[in-house]
Amino acid sequence: MRTGIATVCLSGTLKEKMQACAIAGFDGIEIFEQDLVTSPLSPEDVRKMAADLGLGLDLYQPFRDFDSVSEDILQENLRRADAKFKLMSRLGMDTILVCTNVGTATIDDDDLRAEQLSRLAELAGDHGVKVAYEALAWGKYVNDYEHAHRLVDTVDHPNLGTCLDSFHILSRDWDTAPIEAIKPEKIFFVQVADAPKLSMDVLSWSRHYRVFPGEGQFELAKFMGHVARAGYSGPVSLEVFNDVFRQSDVERTAVDAMRSLIWLEEQSAKWLDANAVSLAPGETPGGARGDSLANAAGRRRYPMELATLPKVAEPAGFNFAEVKTDDPAQLETLLGRLGFEFDGRHRTKDVQLWSMGHARVIINEQAPSHSEPAIAALGFDVDSPVIASARAQQLKAPVVPRKVQADEEVFQGIAAPDSTEIFLCQGSPDGTAAWTREFGEGLEHPSMGAQAVIDHVNLAQPWQHFDEAVLFYTSALALEPQPFAEVPSPSGLVRSQVMQTSDRAVRLVLNLAPVIQQGNGTRKSYQEHIAFAVTDLVATARAAQARGLEFLQIPANYYEDLDARFALDPAFLATLKELNLLYDRDANGEFLHFYTATVGSVFFEMVERRGNYDGYGAPNAPVRHAVQYDSLQAHHLHR
Amino acid sequence: MRTGIATVCLSGTLKEKMQACAIAGFDGIEIFEQDLVTSPLSPEDVRKMAADLGLGLDLYQPFRDFDSVSEDILQENLRRADAKFKLMSRLGMDTILVCTNVGTATIDDDDLRAEQLSRLAELAGDHGVKVAYEALAWGKYVNDYEHAHRLVDTVDHPNLGTCLDSFHILSRDWDTAPIEAIKPEKIFFVQVADAPKLSMDVLSWSRHYRVFPGEGQFELAKFMGHVARAGYSGPVSLEVFNDVFRQSDVERTAVDAMRSLIWLEEQSAKWLDANAVSLAPGETPGGARGDSLANAAGRRRYPMELATLPKVAEPAGFNFAEVKTDDPAQLETLLGRLGFEFDGRHRTKDVQLWSMGHARVIINEQAPSHSEPAIAALGFDVDSPVIASARAQQLKAPVVPRKVQADEEVFQGIAAPDSTEIFLCQGSPDGTAAWTREFGEGLEHPSMGAQAVIDHVNLAQPWQHFDEAVLFYTSALALEPQPFAEVPSPSGLVRSQVMQTSDRAVRLVLNLAPVIQQGNGTRKSYQEHIAFAVTDLVATARAAQARGLEFLQIPANYYEDLDARFALDPAFLATLKELNLLYDRDANGEFLHFYTATVGSVFFEMVERRGNYDGYGAPNAPVRHAVQYDSLQAHHLHR
Repeated sequence: MRTGIATVCLSGTLKEKMQACAIAGFDGIEIFEQDLVTSPLSPEDVRKMAADLGLGLDLYQPFRDFDSVSEDILQENLRRADAKFKLMSRLGMDTILVCTNVGTATIDDDDLRAEQLSRLAELAGDHGVKVAYEALAWGKYVNDYEHAHRLVDTVDHPNLGTCLDSFHILSRDWDTAPIEAIKPEKIFFVQVADAPKLSMDVLSWSRHYRVFPGEGQFELAKFMGHVARAGYSGPVSLEVFNDVFRQSDVERTAVDAMRSLIWLEEQSAKWLDANAVSLAPGETPGGARGDSLANAAGRRRYPMELATLPKVAEPAGFNFAEVKTDDPAQLETLLGRLGFEFDGRHRTKDVQLWSMGHARVIINEQAPSHSEPAIAALGFDVDSPVIASARAQQLKAPVVPRKVQADEEVFQGIAAPDSTEIFLCQGSPDGTAAWTREFGEGLEHPSMGAQAVIDHVNLAQPWQHFDEAVLFYTSALALEPQPFAEVPSPSGLVRSQVMQTSDRAVRLVLNLAPVIQQGNGTRKSYQEHIAFAVTDLVATARAAQARGLEFLQIPANYYEDLDARFALDPAFLATLKELNLLYDRDANGEFLHFYTATVGSVFFEMVERRGNYDGYGAPNAPVRHAVQYDSLQAHHLHR
Repeated sequence: MRTGIATVCLSGTLKEKMQACAIAGFDGIEIFEQDLVTSPLSPEDVRKMAADLGLGLDLYQPFRDFDSVSEDILQENLRRADAKFKLMSRLGMDTILVCTNVGTATIDDDDLRAEQLSRLAELAGDHGVKVAYEALAWGKYVNDYEHAHRLVDTVDHPNLGTCLDSFHILSRDWDTAPIEAIKPEKIFFVQVADAPKLSMDVLSWSRHYRVFPGEGQFELAKFMGHVARAGYSGPVSLEVFNDVFRQSDVERTAVDAMRSLIWLEEQSAKWLDANAVSLAPGETPGGARGDSLANAAGRRRYPMELATLPKVAEPAGFNFAEVKTDDPAQLETLLGRLGFEFDGRHRTKDVQLWSMGHARVIINEQAPSHSEPAIAALGFDVDSPVIASARAQQLKAPVVPRKVQADEEVFQGIAAPDSTEIFLCQGSPDGTAAWTREFGEGLEHPSMGAQAVIDHVNLAQPWQHFDEAVLFYTSALALEPQPFAEVPSPSGLVRSQVMQTSDRAVRLVLNLAPVIQQGNGTRKSYQEHIAFAVTDLVATARAAQARGLEFLQIPANYYEDLDARFALDPAFLATLKELNLLYDRDANGEFLHFYTATVGSVFFEMVERRGNYDGYGAPNAPVRHAVQYDSLQAHHLHR
């Protein structure tokens, strides 16, 4: 698949954008007119730079408000088009995007439109330019790709074709199957964008909230499947207007964009496999449509080549979580009082292993001095670490270098967008981990005492990398994004996105925390945590209390409200209150949990899931946020 | 008017919120349930704190999903209500907000609803509680205030009344006139919120985008006029869910909120004046409705007391602009080459005066060392500086202290939300300023050489204070906000809000610049500028060029595009290109302008308006942003 991206997706100057696209590995780019107009580079400079960078200049865009106008305006528009065609010849570009008219259209007449487009095509032909006509979702008279294509069909000129843009088609819920009926030589260009499903006017939605494929909720693999089945094999190019990407680091965004296309390619191939079409009896490979091919099983193949990725199944569970600090004493105390056992130090590194059943926590003491304790790494159990790592690297995940001794376990590590290190570990049927032999007495550490597993991990994401993180975990780790929620906190709404495996063995919560700036300029960082699941939370809490654990203190008002909501058994309510436990209930089951005090930006949670409760105690999250905020304020006052 | 605010409008803990509300001068607050539930303060603590702070506890809110349910759920809801009524008695609160059912309503039957509300009112009566029933705009069966009130009327119970919320009414475009028909004793509470007109689902709009009165586009004065004419005189309380306010400094937001109510009070009184109702013949003061009163002119008055503010007309023009720096050399060069004359130094302060006709620029050399040159102050011509200052201070604008000698002009200064100092100056019929005698030779500086005026000033606003700034300039300075625009730049979209007087003598552009964080962590600050209008821009530019002015260099591509768009006369186009002039044209006229290079975060613009051109060359803004971004990048590379 030929990959492309519109310069409007990225921040920076045209030069910076082109360089970033080349580094990310795109085959070609669309030049957004404004990026050229505002650039000090001449068209000839741009042409040379693209050639030097190995970037195709695949589309000049957009030419607006051409058709459905009176003759005098049309004359003006043809003059304008002529100037742009000349410019394109200096750029060495041969395809221009012409959108259906939004601003100046006054005449709703398909015959007239066809005649006007025909004159444009004729002029374009004189300059060797191909016009890709695209229906905007909010086009005044033409806002549907089938309508736009009927016009192209009517004109029937070699220099006029269709541009298909997934946003304009899927935002309006148009059926995508009829794409297959379009002749491949009439599809001049394909643009893809994903988007969250929002209920707002489509123009604002389009201009601000588009995201890269895999970061939204559109059925893009199906869209691409229909495009491939139409026989199209030209560029598939991202056109994503997004307020955040426009102000994020250009090179990172370009890599995020490339990852989305690599992933989309795989998903499209999967869709085509799942919806395979057999050749009709008597049809020969290369048959009815000259461009159709068949594979050995007699299934139709298509001209678009879709590269595949190393396959991975979803991870089977968490292998470990690692917290980094330069001063481990508080973390040791917290874990010990929670009921974790100290399994010893690593034989060559300054790291400790703590465990509670299969829940393993590494305290890495190699943090720079005076840095706050933070979650630094997560290990996931996968079938094959090497295959999973190969996949992640093909998806452009940066590799994490890790020094190992000859006799140590080699970990395959990649960096998540928020810099958390993700290690792909060999899972074992009994939940043990061979690498634990490198700690303490050199024995593999079986689960001896209290049993627990890592239930979920909650990571704070910087606002620039939230969408990128969703795609990263979706594509590299096969986690499935759930609908996102918003949780109020004293410092603003916290956007919360759950990513999980289908069996819930891995649950990751990505939180986009608000940035608060108060009078004194203090910038509060959001806290992250690791949650462990046990089978008897009350007993676990009692034991932890006896060991002197510092629990997050839950206000009495919470228990009154809980009682008002759930009419709990008084003895049970008293136990919850005594132990600072939180409670939630839904149609599927019950949820009990408690939080520890925070060390640096890290705290721990213990949970018990009863029945089929599948959530995270969302109604209790505001209580946690408020109490943590209060402690933080008190902490600042005391300093 | 009794002023109130819901705690949900503000960031922080309940305690912080209550303190901020008291400092801002609110009469009372609404307690948002979650703020209490998450607070370590007991209900008795809250009651005592409110009494100590002199804050009324006017409304407990919200109680959700009560009516239109089956009998078993109703029983459950009554139990829940009973718990909340008991809690309210501990808080010493007597009014609770009950919203129409969104989540659990299953039975659409007004008789049943009335019966269920009647049972709620009866229970509330037992606890001395009043239930204020409010139609949510997205209520499942009841989403219209008139419908909600018909139910209240049917039940006819002293403990059941209506709550009117401007957002739920105006977001749905419900007619507000029928409010007058509601008996005043049946309006238990009034909540106000403004909002920009957005086309999106009303729930998201309500939860994220509400703003304080004067910061949006709702006709709130009219809404309040109808409420006053209904005879209501209870609390008018802000309920504003806003993502930014939730994460902004709590004390500042509370003051912004209070300003909005003070302003709304004035606007409501104006609406009532403009829509005055005379007493009917034979009707006596205190007449038909016991609460109606009449003034001397026989016009009806209402129980709601609406305080007024010192009146100001819109400013007649800019008096001066002041730039602060610790190193004036570059600014001196720039102004001199632009054609400004140096009028001398102040006789006691380290400030210089430069002028070009009536355009006066002060260079204040008293900036802290190594600070970047920045726009520090603006002077506006007003009828009466003292009255204007009194008004601004009643609107809670902070006063700017300024040391003056006995024989110097006393300036009335207030601080804008972005800390720009706003000076209210005595305008003069001939455009001169008496204070200029304090500079140089002690002569008043008449306009000798080239003529110019300040056309507009463009100020960058921090994201936390953008809405606050709109209200500040609207309420304190009588500027009128125009619809906002968004301009693309290499570092993201720039939100741009024009505030102007009706005669355009004062034009202020507030820009909300994107925050860009690049790989190296550089945070770019947005540039601000002062624009001067002249009558012959080409001549001004030629003279400046001859003096060696450093113009912002406009790319050649821009002129090609300009020609494609406007088909300009080749000689004129050549002149534009030669002098780095920008051009725009619309149905009303033409606009020529150029920019200087930037010093620190300040640059200057020269403009010529031809015909009735009323804009700012918006199509050219992306060019400016791109070139400035490029220079900034180059500057960083050279350092």
